[in-house]
Amino acid sequence: MSYRFEAGRIYRTPTHFGPAPGPRQLPDGITSDPKRSPRRLSVAASFLTKAALLERHLPEGFTLAGEPVVTVEFHYMTAIDWLAGRGYTMIEASWPVTFTGRHEHATGRFLAVVWENLADPIITGRGEVGQPKLYAEIAEPRYWEGAHTCNAGWMGFRFLDLAVSDLRDEQRPPNKAPSDGTLMLKYIPRTGAWGEAELQQVTLTPASNPDMTIERQQTGVGTVRFHHAAWSDLPTMYHVVNALAELPVIEPRGGSVISSRGGKSLRDQRVLT
Amino acid sequence: MSYRFEAGRIYRTPTHFGPAPGPRQLPDGITSDPKRSPRRLSVAASFLTKAALLERHLPEGFTLAGEPVVTVEFHYMTAIDWLAGRGYTMIEASWPVTFTGRHEHATGRFLAVVWENLADPIITGRGEVGQPKLYAEIAEPRYWEGAHTCNAGWMGFRFLDLAVSDLRDEQRPPNKAPSDGTLMLKYIPRTGAWGEAELQQVTLTPASNPDMTIERQQTGVGTVRFHHAAWSDLPTMYHVVNALAELPVIEPRGGSVISSRGGKSLRDQRVLT
Amino acid sequence: MSYRFEAGRIYRTPTHFGPAPGPRQLPDGITSDPKRSPRRLSVAASFLTKAALLERHLPEGFTLAGEPVVTVEFHYMTAIDWLAGRGYTMIEASWPVTFTGRHEHATGRFLAVVWENLADPIITGRGEVGQPKLYAEIAEPRYWEGAHTCNAGWMGFRFLDLAVSDLRDEQRPPNKAPSDGTLMLKYIPRTGAWGEAELQQVTLTPASNPDMTIERQQTGVGTVRFHHAAWSDLPTMYHVVNALAELPVIEPRGGSVISSRGGKSLRDQRVLT
Amino acid sequence: MSYRFEAGRIYRTPTHFGPAPGPRQLPDGITSDPKRSPRRLSVAASFLTKAALLERHLPEGFTLAGEPVVTVEFHYMTAIDWLAGRGYTMIEASWPVTFTGRHEHATGRFLAVVWENLADPIITGRGEVGQPKLYAEIAEPRYWEGAHTCNAGWMGFRFLDLAVSDLRDEQRPPNKAPSDGTLMLKYIPRTGAWGEAELQQVTLTPASNPDMTIERQQTGVGTVRFHHAAWSDLPTMYHVVNALAELPVIEPRGGSVISSRGGKSLRDQRVLT
Repeated sequence: MSYRFEAGRIYRTPTHFGPAPGPRQLPDGITSDPKRSPRRLSVAASFLTKAALLERHLPEGFTLAGEPVVTVEFHYMTAIDWLAGRGYTMIEASWPVTFTGRHEHATGRFLAVVWENLADPIITGRGEVGQPKLYAEIAEPRYWEGAHTCNAGWMGFRFLDLAVSDLRDEQRPPNKAPSDGTLMLKYIPRTGAWGEAELQQVTLTPASNPDMTIERQQTGVGTVRFHHAAWSDLPTMYHVVNALAELPVIEPRGGSVISSRGGKSLRDQRVLT
Repeated sequence: MSYRFEAGRIYRTPTHFGPAPGPRQLPDGITSDPKRSPRRLSVAASFLTKAALLERHLPEGFTLAGEPVVTVEFHYMTAIDWLAGRGYTMIEASWPVTFTGRHEHATGRFLAVVWENLADPIITGRGEVGQPKLYAEIAEPRYWEGAHTCNAGWMGFRFLDLAVSDLRDEQRPPNKAPSDGTLMLKYIPRTGAWGEAELQQVTLTPASNPDMTIERQQTGVGTVRFHHAAWSDLPTMYHVVNALAELPVIEPRGGSVISSRGGKSLRDQRVLT
Repeated sequence: MSYRFEAGRIYRTPTHFGPAPGPRQLPDGITSDPKRSPRRLSVAASFLTKAALLERHLPEGFTLAGEPVVTVEFHYMTAIDWLAGRGYTMIEASWPVTFTGRHEHATGRFLAVVWENLADPIITGRGEVGQPKLYAEIAEPRYWEGAHTCNAGWMGFRFLDLAVSDLRDEQRPPNKAPSDGTLMLKYIPRTGAWGEAELQQVTLTPASNPDMTIERQQTGVGTVRFHHAAWSDLPTMYHVVNALAELPVIEPRGGSVISSRGGKSLRDQRVLT
Repeated sequence: MSYRFEAGRIYRTPTHFGPAPGPRQLPDGITSDPKRSPRRLSVAASFLTKAALLERHLPEGFTLAGEPVVTVEFHYMTAIDWLAGRGYTMIEASWPVTFTGRHEHATGRFLAVVWENLADPIITGRGEVGQPKLYAEIAEPRYWEGAHTCNAGWMGFRFLDLAVSDLRDEQRPPNKAPSDGTLMLKYIPRTGAWGEAELQQVTLTPASNPDMTIERQQTGVGTVRFHHAAWSDLPTMYHVVNALAELPVIEPRGGSVISSRGGKSLRDQRVLT
């Protein structure tokens, strides 16, 4: 007798061994406290670039919202509930957009690409949430002479450096434009019909994140640099890194270092139509 | 101006930076010789188990074909064309099945789960091909006192040991039942509608692999052992490992060590209906 | 013209490229603040064992001082000055001893073995300081359900688990017996005369550590377990791990979790005669 | 009762747990076949540089022997007996010298620095043999478009690239000058007396290696490049890498790719006086 899928339970390939434990489905009997998990050190830097270049990397239905400012964030996370207290690191590159669908529209940050140094959240994030996650080797955070230094690479090719220096404590909450949340494109290729899409949809992470508490917030001078790669350096993603490396830094727009705890499971992720 | 997808080109999330280089789409100007790439050391062991237990891990439409024999293979690959000559390792667990769809049926090996130690082919394999790939840390192959020893773990928890000893060279080609190829289930969860499937389809890797050449083939005594895990040991896949650990080894069914070169890109992967 | 050693500068093999930067010799122009570097999370657990078994692992001149209590500590360090702000992790196993030399005697903890997950401090520590450092893969600290969980392995074989749970904040400083510091044996084998020693001397890290500040201190229930290994599991140190695994845990003696900053370079390390 | 050292047995820090298993001392009952272990893929490239610059990196008693040609070799080793069949990679940088001691003289290659990607042989090699071993992350060998590509880094900073292309099979044995073997300097700093040496001696690996068999030998075009580093990139060895990066490549002197099996334990290592 073959197996049946249980209704209302999240599955993930391979589905043959039962519902899948993960960020949005802890095993029975495991409880988690979203006010305490995860702990997060976030180091971010932004820069103004050319609008026309950013637009080339926007899917249909998206337009830039305000200034063409790219933000790159390193999130060093620990004490993650769904990993039984382990951690990993996530890098996000985004810029502000408005999406206009047939029935809905939303303004927020466009999550263009994410890198993580653990395959498990890449698998869950791509499949369940639609996040554009790729893999990178990400060094542990480095703190030296008052600066946080971050970098990422792949098989020995370092493609991203970011630093935030001249830190000063900041009492005001982060100065953010009103936002509906984070927008991204979930895309699944069609097996066998190469070049066709099985699925292509815009998904949204709503901005609300009530269980997150900022413990310390600093601002400073931020620098970010992507390094141009040959195909043989990054044979699965040189096109991604090079597109970002080609964005001119017209003006730095500052950096920040934020320590926080708490978060959400993204069970509120939804498709925009 | 937002971007348009180019017709006939394979894309992968994030799609915003152009068509994606990968196993089935090398950049223009890059040629590859499928008769030489990759090089592969394959170490495999099989065992007879209980049919009723295997059937519990078969999706609808599948039945066991012949004896309930589980095969676990470690494929240590190097000189991979689409990785510009790099390598990685793949573990496959499979058993023989027949699939009966509405219009088609096929007999072959059911690829129940795959582990790989590189995220890039996990991403391409899950999305483009439908392979049930997960991540594992896989030790380099170990050869000592005439035995090949293989193991795999995740964040320090070793979940799989396999060995093939008492090796003797084998002149005959591997004794394989007639097969249509390798069968698997491509499953994509639906974002927001947790527990629902966006896509669920059976895909087939046809058996034909004309560019592959076996350079050396040995047979021997094989042992394979999965180690039972707590959720906190393997919080994203303890259910997978434990299901395999619970399969009784009624009888070992031998092992093999094969050195080969050449392969295919799986552009012939197709959906069965 | 061959090179000459510069007087008063620390060298390390290979010496041919000039004085060696390291923990006790920063390059000119690099300053460091020992009150701030490193940051350290220390997770420790102790147990009472049999005196006779511990004594078998004491070199000549050493006797147990007080109860035969073994302490195992994981020190997760970040923002290390001599690594330009990077971090690494150190595991120490020790018990209380008195050393009586020809001219000096000292009481303190006997540092029986150290494991670290970075080769650089292993090299400097063994050669310059005489610390008994070996290499291990050490997982990032894991915090889950109020417990800190630590483990260490080597090439996929996990040989040490430690946890501290039921944590409560502790206001009093750590209750430590008066101590002259940490004692260890520096031993250098003689090349070519296999089995002979080139150097064998007792060295002491004096207890004083004035730049270190404890930021938070918790006590709790501690457990520690070494796992018995075959030679093929740990071919360079199964004898070390097995000796520790064979020490019976007569009684747990508690655990602690301490966050601190600041430290010292061990320039005060000295030979006891 | 404290322990006594057993006569004639090799010890290594920590000595407290008995004689140390390692390359030159396998446990009782473990046998090894030096004609089969290890297996080795060696990729090497040489270049002519300025004699005066090389001489600056020669210790007292050494002079250049013949042309100032630097050779860099990557040795990818597997099936290593003393690691129970595991492998690791070693990089060697050397040039030809003559050593004149008080009583002996020898001509051979001067092993200036070694990098390895496993701490265990670094520990045994530095202490027992006197090899100038440091740690590096070394990518698996990459073979693409008829070229072998090798590289090494440390915590994300790549400091060495080497490639050998245009390979042709070579029937003649490697064309080597008569050599007494490999020369190196064993140096142990004195604890507490910072800047003084506890031990400084020249050691020799005799050239004879009768159990090694070359299985395939190719020659080709070799390139080697060291990358200049800041202290913060390589805080324990920027001085080593920069000294090598500053050697001008006056003329490439070819590359080679050699597959071999068998070797020796270096029990024949001896001190030159």
